[in-house]
Amino acid sequence: MDAVIVGFGFLGRGLAEALSSKWELVASFDPEFRLVGASNSRGYLFAKQGVRPSELLGLDGLSRHPLFVDGGSSIELLERARPQIVVELTPTNIVDGEPGLTHIRHALRMGAHVVTANKGALTHAYWELVGEAEKMGVLLLYESTVAGAVPVFSLVRECLRGDRVKKILGILNGTTNYILSRMHFEEIGFEAALKEAKERGLTERDPAVDIEGHDAACKAVILANALMGKRVKLSEVKRKGVSGVSLEAVRLAKKSGHTIKLIASIGEEEVEVSPRLVPLNHPLCVHGTLNSIHLETDLAEQLTLIGHGAGKQTVSALFNDLLTVLKRAKQAGSFTHK
Amino acid sequence: MDAVIVGFGFLGRGLAEALSSKWELVASFDPEFRLVGASNSRGYLFAKQGVRPSELLGLDGLSRHPLFVDGGSSIELLERARPQIVVELTPTNIVDGEPGLTHIRHALRMGAHVVTANKGALTHAYWELVGEAEKMGVLLLYESTVAGAVPVFSLVRECLRGDRVKKILGILNGTTNYILSRMHFEEIGFEAALKEAKERGLTERDPAVDIEGHDAACKAVILANALMGKRVKLSEVKRKGVSGVSLEAVRLAKKSGHTIKLIASIGEEEVEVSPRLVPLNHPLCVHGTLNSIHLETDLAEQLTLIGHGAGKQTVSALFNDLLTVLKRAKQAGSFTHK
Repeated sequence: MDAVIVGFGFLGRGLAEALSSKWELVASFDPEFRLVGASNSRGYLFAKQGVRPSELLGLDGLSRHPLFVDGGSSIELLERARPQIVVELTPTNIVDGEPGLTHIRHALRMGAHVVTANKGALTHAYWELVGEAEKMGVLLLYESTVAGAVPVFSLVRECLRGDRVKKILGILNGTTNYILSRMHFEEIGFEAALKEAKERGLTERDPAVDIEGHDAACKAVILANALMGKRVKLSEVKRKGVSGVSLEAVRLAKKSGHTIKLIASIGEEEVEVSPRLVPLNHPLCVHGTLNSIHLETDLAEQLTLIGHGAGKQTVSALFNDLLTVLKRAKQAGSFTHK
Repeated sequence: MDAVIVGFGFLGRGLAEALSSKWELVASFDPEFRLVGASNSRGYLFAKQGVRPSELLGLDGLSRHPLFVDGGSSIELLERARPQIVVELTPTNIVDGEPGLTHIRHALRMGAHVVTANKGALTHAYWELVGEAEKMGVLLLYESTVAGAVPVFSLVRECLRGDRVKKILGILNGTTNYILSRMHFEEIGFEAALKEAKERGLTERDPAVDIEGHDAACKAVILANALMGKRVKLSEVKRKGVSGVSLEAVRLAKKSGHTIKLIASIGEEEVEVSPRLVPLNHPLCVHGTLNSIHLETDLAEQLTLIGHGAGKQTVSALFNDLLTVLKRAKQAGSFTHK
C-alpha cells in the first residue's frame, strides 16, 4: 500500500523515524508498503516509487529533499499520489478544524484509509467523517487525537467489545495538569506555574486553548462521540478553565487528601470540562504532564489508562494505527479503492 | 459455534449471566452461537441443541438442571459435545496446573478455541499450550488470568503491535495490596490486616499463596512469556512475600511520600516478585484490592492500566475473549476444526 504524510512536522518526523527503524515489522504486515509522499506548509514531495523514510529525517529534512516541490499543496499531492493511506498531521485548529478537515474529507472521498492526529477536524466533523469512511469502506483512525500515546480508542474497539462504556472521566490536557501539579506540590500560585509551563514549552501559541479548557473540551467531544455514541458538539460542552483556581483552594484540597484537577467528564447526561476535587489516591489522579482516562463500564466496572498525553510518545498511537490499517487491509484481501 | 464451560462456578455463572443479558450482541458476532454444555466437580450438562444460559443461573443452577449428569467428567463432556469453543474455569492449582491443564490440552487437541481463567495451567505450560493452539490453528485466550478485568494481553496484542515491551511492573495480587493498603492508611500491623482480609473473604484457602507471592509469581510468568517472549519457569522467579513487612517500615515509607507494595517486576534480565518502596504519586501505586500494570515500551514509553484484579468484574475479560474468538472465526470464514 502507498502512504503519504500530510503536515510533515514534529510528529511526521517521529513517524518517519519509527517507519525507518521498524521497517521489517511494517513489511511483515505489507511487503509492498511504500511512503510515496509528504507535505508541509511550504510544499510537498512526491516519489512514485517511494522514498526511504530516513531521507526525510533531520530538521527541514522534507523541504531540503531534492524531490521537494516548493509551493505545491497537500491536495495536489493527494491527487498526484492517489495513495491508499493518508496520515494527516497538520496543526490542530479548534475553530473550524481546517485545513485538516479538508484534507481528511478529500482523502476519504478518494477511498483512502486515514490515520490522523488532528483533533480539530475530528471535533468539528466526527460523524460526517466516520460516515464518509463507512460509505467508502475505509478506516478512519485517530488514536493520537486524545491523550497522545494512550490507546483508549483501540482499547475499547478491540478489547472491550462486550462492555458498554457508561461514563468517562479524564485528565486530558498536560499543560493544565502540569500547572495544577506545580501548585499542589510546590505551593506556587497559578501565574508562577503558568510562567514555568510557558518556559518549558508546554503551552500552545494561545495559552487560553489549554488554560480555558478548549483543548480538553475538544477531546471530550471525540471521546463522547467515539466511545459512547453521543452526538455532542463542541458548543454543547459545559466548560470552565483553571485560571480561577487559587493556591488557597489547592492548599485546602491538599489538607484533606485531595487535589484540584481539570477533569473532562462524559456521563449519560452531559459533557463537562471543569476543575474538580480529586482524591490523591484515585487512579485518575496523575501529575505532571501525564494524562489519564477512567472508564466506567457495565462489566469491568472501572478501568484507568495512564500515559503520555503529548510529545514524541504520540508516535506510538500513529504507528499502531498505521499497522492496524495494514493488518485490516491484509485480512480483507482486497481494497475498496483503486 | 458451540461452546462449553468447564469448571462452572462463580465465574461461570457470571459469564452465563453476561451471555444471557447480552445475547443479541453475541448473536451479532455469530447467529449460530450456542452454549451446549457445562461441567463442575460433580458432573456435567450436555444439550446438543444448546441451553439458554439463564437456565444455569442461581446457586447450584447447573447441578439442579434436569439434564445434569451426576458423576460425569469434564473430558467426557468435551468428547460428547465436540465444541468449537471451550471456556476453562476450574480452580487454579499453582502446583501443577491440574485439572485445568489436562482440559485445555484436550480441548486444543480437539481443535477447539480455548478461553481460560486458569493461571495454573498457563503458568506451567505456557509455551506448550501456545504451540498446540498454533499447530491446530485455534485461539488460546487467557485475558482473565492476570489482573482480572484489566485487558493487558489484548491491549498489547491488538493496540500495541508496533511497540516493543521492554519492562513490566505490576501490582498483581489484590489480597496483599489490600493488606499493605490497610497498614499504610490505618497504620495497623500485618497480622491485624491479614485477619481483616480473611474476614472479608479476600484470601485463598491457603493464605500463603497470596502472602508469600506465589500468586503474583504465576502472573509474572504469564506476563513475561506472553508480552516479552521470555521462556520463564515459575521456579526461576525470584520471590519474596509480604509477611516480613513491618508497620514500622510502612510508616517510614509514608513519611517520605512512599509506601510499600508487592511488586512483580519483569525486566530484560530477571523476573522478580518482592515488596518495594513505591512513590505515592506513581501511576502504579493503587490501593485496596485494585491491580495495576505499568508497561515500558520503546514508543509509548510508559502506559499504566488499572482495574479490578479479581471478582465478578473478571467476567469482562472472559466475555471479551469469547467475542474475540467469534469475531476471528467470522473473519476466517471457516474453521480449521470440525
